[in-house]
Amino acid sequence: MDARKADRDLKRALERAEPVAGGGLLDRRAFLRAGSASLGAVVGGLSAGRIVAAEGAPVEGRIERPAWMRTPGAPMREYGQPAERERSVSRHLQRRYGVTAPGSGASLTPLHALEGTLTPNGLHFERHHAGVPDIDPDQHTLRIHGLVQRPLAFDLNALLRYPMTTRTCFVECSGNSVFNVAPEPQLLSCGELHGLVSCSEWTGVSLGLLLDEAGIDPRAGWIVFEGGDAAAMVRSLPLALAATEGMIALYQNGERIRPEQGYPMRLLMPGLEGNVSVKWLRRIELTEGPAYSRDETAKYTDLQDDGTARQFSLEMDVKSIITRPAAGLALQGAGFYEISGLAWSGAGRVTRVDVSADGGRSWAEAALQDPVLPRALTRFRIPWRWAGGGAIRLQSRAVDESGRVQPTRDEWIAGSSVKSRYHYNAIQTWAVEPDGSIRNTYV
Amino acid sequence: MDARKADRDLKRALERAEPVAGGGLLDRRAFLRAGSASLGAVVGGLSAGRIVAAEGAPVEGRIERPAWMRTPGAPMREYGQPAERERSVSRHLQRRYGVTAPGSGASLTPLHALEGTLTPNGLHFERHHAGVPDIDPDQHTLRIHGLVQRPLAFDLNALLRYPMTTRTCFVECSGNSVFNVAPEPQLLSCGELHGLVSCSEWTGVSLGLLLDEAGIDPRAGWIVFEGGDAAAMVRSLPLALAATEGMIALYQNGERIRPEQGYPMRLLMPGLEGNVSVKWLRRIELTEGPAYSRDETAKYTDLQDDGTARQFSLEMDVKSIITRPAAGLALQGAGFYEISGLAWSGAGRVTRVDVSADGGRSWAEAALQDPVLPRALTRFRIPWRWAGGGAIRLQSRAVDESGRVQPTRDEWIAGSSVKSRYHYNAIQTWAVEPDGSIRNTYV
Repeated sequence: MDARKADRDLKRALERAEPVAGGGLLDRRAFLRAGSASLGAVVGGLSAGRIVAAEGAPVEGRIERPAWMRTPGAPMREYGQPAERERSVSRHLQRRYGVTAPGSGASLTPLHALEGTLTPNGLHFERHHAGVPDIDPDQHTLRIHGLVQRPLAFDLNALLRYPMTTRTCFVECSGNSVFNVAPEPQLLSCGELHGLVSCSEWTGVSLGLLLDEAGIDPRAGWIVFEGGDAAAMVRSLPLALAATEGMIALYQNGERIRPEQGYPMRLLMPGLEGNVSVKWLRRIELTEGPAYSRDETAKYTDLQDDGTARQFSLEMDVKSIITRPAAGLALQGAGFYEISGLAWSGAGRVTRVDVSADGGRSWAEAALQDPVLPRALTRFRIPWRWAGGGAIRLQSRAVDESGRVQPTRDEWIAGSSVKSRYHYNAIQTWAVEPDGSIRNTYV
Repeated sequence: MDARKADRDLKRALERAEPVAGGGLLDRRAFLRAGSASLGAVVGGLSAGRIVAAEGAPVEGRIERPAWMRTPGAPMREYGQPAERERSVSRHLQRRYGVTAPGSGASLTPLHALEGTLTPNGLHFERHHAGVPDIDPDQHTLRIHGLVQRPLAFDLNALLRYPMTTRTCFVECSGNSVFNVAPEPQLLSCGELHGLVSCSEWTGVSLGLLLDEAGIDPRAGWIVFEGGDAAAMVRSLPLALAATEGMIALYQNGERIRPEQGYPMRLLMPGLEGNVSVKWLRRIELTEGPAYSRDETAKYTDLQDDGTARQFSLEMDVKSIITRPAAGLALQGAGFYEISGLAWSGAGRVTRVDVSADGGRSWAEAALQDPVLPRALTRFRIPWRWAGGGAIRLQSRAVDESGRVQPTRDEWIAGSSVKSRYHYNAIQTWAVEPDGSIRNTYV
């Protein structure tokens, strides 16, 4: 190791660690490390115990073996589970729709307890309108009919023989973050506020390929999907959009899709509002126009001030959320922290995320974790030194490859009808209190 | 939709669907679809019911609602589980080491039941030497000591404040696929043979960053890691390698690492043999030379014919396995199938996978699923038309960016000592019998 080079690197790192924006934001490049750099460059990249607080005590004498090293551990399991001590990391059950229909409602992903970009299958958000059906896959049939040259029925074994494709993408409920439309900020955790978004690696059969098998009647302009749950969820999509982007998903994060995600099969429409990705998919009908089903007229439309409704506003907009620090977590005193969050856009890739610690007065660019995939959750990170005290307002603002910029809450409200409840994508503000607690705020 | 263009595309697709190698392998490009193509190009890209067998009956009359649509479904759950009907998709428990030490042994990922590139956390392979310890994260300490400027101790809350990084990579036990060293092919499933490899998205703190905090003594040349299980697994690595590539992993596929994967923290060394990624990590010691621990002398070495042992053969080689069709599955009669598998290399990215259906006499190039990440499992796919009958021998052969080519079994045996048990990466051959069953074979 070249100690001189390490010293020089150290000095440069210290210089870079000066705040680049208000509230203590540091340069994102201070912590970037090249995977193939020489040892000298790597270990010299930061100051020992100077930039990051060394949160530990020196080792003295012999290191005692704790109790769990003095007894044999637990045996193997055929299917593993999270640690018992992580039991609090769970979906938040939202039963406000469940009063009249048991099994209906939503459960939200605890975003503030997770890291990386994927959502484990057990924590993927749920939204049901009549609960999770117990489908026997051997008895389940997917039918394609309507304006096709030959109606077809596919059982699961047939589908499993088709060519498959794998795609990592988010699914977001169009009602995600709706609490922030309320006049006063709701004091909920990050996951309770924004956890109707999750991200998985999905594998299945291209919808277009199955439509080829059936043969599309030239009169067909729309395509209608029906779920096999008791609610028989029905949504319509423009045929060209569905045939180009749609997937009949059979696997999620490697394993077969779970019951609450549509077992044994669901439609997956990357980038579009979640409920068009119809779960427990059983029927695909090609039609001239939309079905105008209850699920796309009474719900999932945005009533405008003039009494008309904005309908088929399918694509989810550019959005980001700081997940750590965030409501549901607390700081442990002044010093260094990483600010970490998620950004996404239904229009494609996220290209930039800026972070503010002073409520939007000054901004610094966050680092985006590779690989940045289109219509997938993207992790952003930026180092931060909290001086303690109050007046910290953490915000993130995402930009996507189409040039869309995430709006402020005021801008979003100004652009919406007072009755709008869907597609809320405004900047989230977390207030950091002097005691380290964190809460939702609008200012 | 331009019907003329569709006709032309159809004709081209039919032409492309002629076999490109023996045994019925079809051109991988026959099924590639551009995500942004126009509807005409997409739906016209394949022949309806001609290339892919249409496995379905026409819809007639009204579509009946099955029983599960006539009753409300199950309520939401705080942490989801796989479908009950997928219970057979589980890790295969291998207890041959467990006779003398309960809790010791291995459980293998059912590769033939999975798709995509990720392994769900519940199905990630396990290898323990004294079972899974029940570690209280609030009582767990990670210490860095030895040839450092200042010994440090980190509790979990301290580590969670450090900058993190996310990386998708495989972990493979160096003993994976060892059954194929046996003189006669073992009639096991694909997962039982090769399931000591899994792939996850890992998030944690760069090891180099923590070494910076402690300050590296220039005399240090090696680094020793100790696990907090009853076996106190100890492995040594060259310091430069560990500091550049190592991660203290805290999250796996989005959630906190599970007990059998090292809760609350493990070392992660992408591309190296699995057991250097020490689980339940509690101690990091910088030293001048290796520890020569039992785990790197009595085990995880390759005894050579001259009585010496090859040691610290850390990097996993280029390898691939066809996972579908594969032993553990069966074909359902002649016709179209997709051949799908996994390829990986400890040296970086997989650049090419060729597939043979005639035991290596002719080869066709498979499509690689994007994104192809370094030291991660890469999914490959190629379409195949099985004519029925016998004499089918499915093989895959991977090449990585360093130019390494996966060897045949004969080549691997010729290059190894008769006592070698580790780093087996030879081409796997699956024999497809006339009745559609599939078995391990060497010829």
